[in-house]
Amino acid sequence: MAGTQGAPSLPDHAVRERLLEVATQLFARKGYAATTTREIVAAASVTKPVLYYYFRSKEGLYLELVQDAFKQFENVVDTSIMGSGSIEQKILRLCDQVFDLVLKKIEVVRLVYAFYYGPPQGAPFFDFDAVHQRLFEAIEQLVMEGMRKKELGKGKVEDMVWAIFGALNITIENELCHPERELGHVGLRRILRLLFQGISTARGRRRGEKR
Amino acid sequence: MAGTQGAPSLPDHAVRERLLEVATQLFARKGYAATTTREIVAAASVTKPVLYYYFRSKEGLYLELVQDAFKQFENVVDTSIMGSGSIEQKILRLCDQVFDLVLKKIEVVRLVYAFYYGPPQGAPFFDFDAVHQRLFEAIEQLVMEGMRKKELGKGKVEDMVWAIFGALNITIENELCHPERELGHVGLRRILRLLFQGISTARGRRRGEKR
Repeated sequence: MAGTQGAPSLPDHAVRERLLEVATQLFARKGYAATTTREIVAAASVTKPVLYYYFRSKEGLYLELVQDAFKQFENVVDTSIMGSGSIEQKILRLCDQVFDLVLKKIEVVRLVYAFYYGPPQGAPFFDFDAVHQRLFEAIEQLVMEGMRKKELGKGKVEDMVWAIFGALNITIENELCHPERELGHVGLRRILRLLFQGISTARGRRRGEKR
Repeated sequence: MAGTQGAPSLPDHAVRERLLEVATQLFARKGYAATTTREIVAAASVTKPVLYYYFRSKEGLYLELVQDAFKQFENVVDTSIMGSGSIEQKILRLCDQVFDLVLKKIEVVRLVYAFYYGPPQGAPFFDFDAVHQRLFEAIEQLVMEGMRKKELGKGKVEDMVWAIFGALNITIENELCHPERELGHVGLRRILRLLFQGISTARGRRRGEKR
């Protein structure tokens, strides 16, 4: 078929990655709807059939992009909650490693924000809330473990999850909007520590009646 | 001129408000670029000259919309930091009243998020970062006051501001994305209280060496 004549004879991982990378940047900068297949292949210095070979279409490329990032995110979450240590260490590690992935995939994160908050752009459906939900559940699991082990004080599990989520979330949004502030890993860790001084058992016991 | 022939002879506040309201909804739902003047006037049941009379153009209407919300936001911030009480009470009040305005203007907030994170839509420039900056400074002022009065423990002012900002921010984003969770004012207050158990003096003194 005409569509595959110009395709490489062997899959070339680097070309596929380059297409994903330039498409992410174009989608994030111009918007999904305003980015054409022609622009993507031109930016990647390949021909249209190469894009069709790997992804079938702009829609296919987009889905691959977000699904791939989601899989990496799930891996990070799954492995980071399994490690050992105190609950404080585990929560710091989870947030740290999720933030690490955010930095590596900052353009994909920018794109996700644009899709999530921006006007409809006619892209195929992807359940962005699932990302949020998975992270919520991971933090929730650690908070509940911390309560069982009495490393965290009494209180509403949900509130503690939101407080932790809020610290991670504002650090991510700072990175998206004001990377020059350089809050980064170190800032995230300091903010979480401030919060832990509130939710660890020692304080919880003394102030239990106020909760 | 033809453009003003259909304008009302006396300014009608309700009509102006209705135009702002329907435009906000259309901009937020369809995007700024995809919304036409024709659609706005149709949704408000007025003629085009009425829109031109009040706002001159779609651009003018949009600027009025965001500037008006910004002014209200500044008023809320200015008045709520002036009240009396402990620093904890003052910070809770500030967050509570900002969140109150967010609920009242939730469609404008949605629009601001779409402009801030979404693809370029050709709207006239508005400095959304100024909103963020004003709120940051207000919280910063209260945190510094709290440190001076020894109601807050030692630590980096910036970290405490981000921790407080993070709690407010995640509550606002919950309201935008998942209003059904009903975190709301009560949830925001509980999350902030969790945080205060960490940043209030009693804990600061005991854990001062870890900061």
